[in-house]
Amino acid sequence: MQKPLNVLNQAINKQVMVELKGNREYRGVLDGYDPHMNLVLKNAEELIKGEVVRKLVVTIVRGDNVIFISP
Amino acid sequence: MQKPLNVLNQAINKQVMVELKGNREYRGVLDGYDPHMNLVLKNAEELIKGEVVRKLVVTIVRGDNVIFISP
Amino acid sequence: MQKPLNVLNQAINKQVMVELKGNREYRGVLDGYDPHMNLVLKNAEELIKGEVVRKLVVTIVRGDNVIFISP
Amino acid sequence: MQKPLNVLNQAINKQVMVELKGNREYRGVLDGYDPHMNLVLKNAEELIKGEVVRKLVVTIVRGDNVIFISP
Amino acid sequence: MQKPLNVLNQAINKQVMVELKGNREYRGVLDGYDPHMNLVLKNAEELIKGEVVRKLVVTIVRGDNVIFISP
Amino acid sequence: MQKPLNVLNQAINKQVMVELKGNREYRGVLDGYDPHMNLVLKNAEELIKGEVVRKLVVTIVRGDNVIFISP
Amino acid sequence: MQKPLNVLNQAINKQVMVELKGNREYRGVLDGYDPHMNLVLKNAEELIKGEVVRKLVVTIVRGDNVIFISP
Repeated sequence: MQKPLNVLNQAINKQVMVELKGNREYRGVLDGYDPHMNLVLKNAEELIKGEVVRKLVVTIVRGDNVIFISP
Repeated sequence: MQKPLNVLNQAINKQVMVELKGNREYRGVLDGYDPHMNLVLKNAEELIKGEVVRKLVVTIVRGDNVIFISP
Repeated sequence: MQKPLNVLNQAINKQVMVELKGNREYRGVLDGYDPHMNLVLKNAEELIKGEVVRKLVVTIVRGDNVIFISP
Repeated sequence: MQKPLNVLNQAINKQVMVELKGNREYRGVLDGYDPHMNLVLKNAEELIKGEVVRKLVVTIVRGDNVIFISP
Repeated sequence: MQKPLNVLNQAINKQVMVELKGNREYRGVLDGYDPHMNLVLKNAEELIKGEVVRKLVVTIVRGDNVIFISP
Repeated sequence: MQKPLNVLNQAINKQVMVELKGNREYRGVLDGYDPHMNLVLKNAEELIKGEVVRKLVVTIVRGDNVIFISP
Repeated sequence: MQKPLNVLNQAINKQVMVELKGNREYRGVLDGYDPHMNLVLKNAEELIKGEVVRKLVVTIVRGDNVIFISP
């Protein structure tokens, strides 16, 4: 058994896929998180309906909108 | 009588079906959870309207969006 | 006068009807609950617009989505 | 001046009308409540757009969805 | 400077207009409130899109849905 | 660096623009606030899609619906 | 590993892009924040669907609506 936040912790410095409400997806390197699942991503791509729409060197994603995070 | 989190605990290492808001469904092996019903799934499939759209080796599902979890 | 959670407690092991947001309805035997109104149902049927769409041996329904519970 | 929960307390054993989000209305005898405005109604009728769609001997209505309660 | 709840307190026994989400409006005499902005209104009128649709001798309005309150 | 509530405090007695969810906008003199960003406005105008639809001598705006406040 | 609020702190006095729910975007200099991710922006531009619709000398953005913040 693994706690969700532990799995998140093991994903630090790894590539993750983050699905948000509203068909938004972010792919980038996980640089940090907090207990609300707010995330810091580095070298992230924002995808809307599967298309890369933006590149972001650093981005803070608010945990509120997260559906799932996949290391 | 069984508390919801106890039932979740008994489902650890078992196949579960997780229904989320927005017609999303995940099927996979429950690897962990926390009191907010955030979940860790292994070898998960994401289904939208009954169709497998993605396979995820490990995924952290935010409890916020859960409608039901069925072991 | 009866507190809502007491009425829920008296419904343990009885057939209940649970109406959720989004026109979902569950009917089954109440096996457990917690103060957030998360529920455990046994031998549950999921109905969408009055039609049985799924049968679930055990299911944990998140309290967040509950509109009403009727023993 | 009267606190909302006091007014609710005085309505115990009286007929109340409860308006919920999503055009749902319940009319029945108030049998209980808690500080979240979760309610217990007896001999309740569920109305959708003014039409009685269901009768419920006992029902627990989650406070979350309440718009107003009128004794 | 006046705190919002103080302004509400000064409106006790006065006519107020309460705008809720979903184009609902209530006008009545403020008889009480609590820190969640749950309100008790007396001799209230419910208006939908500016039309009086209901009269309510006493009503408890849940603070959650309030957009603004105007004494 | 300035905390959001400090900036709000400096705007007391000044004209502010408040944008709410649902395309509502209020312009008026900030007379008070609390930590939930509930606001008291004096001599406020309510605008929907840029048109003044109502004038309000005093109004309590619930912080929940605020998108931004601009002194 | 960096906590989300630390990354926000390092962005003080720098240009940031803030994406909100409802296709709203703000670009401006970050002047402050609090643990709810309420933000103070200076010399901000509001963009709707990529078009600048408003300029705001100072604005307090409520954290509730934030999707991401990118320094």
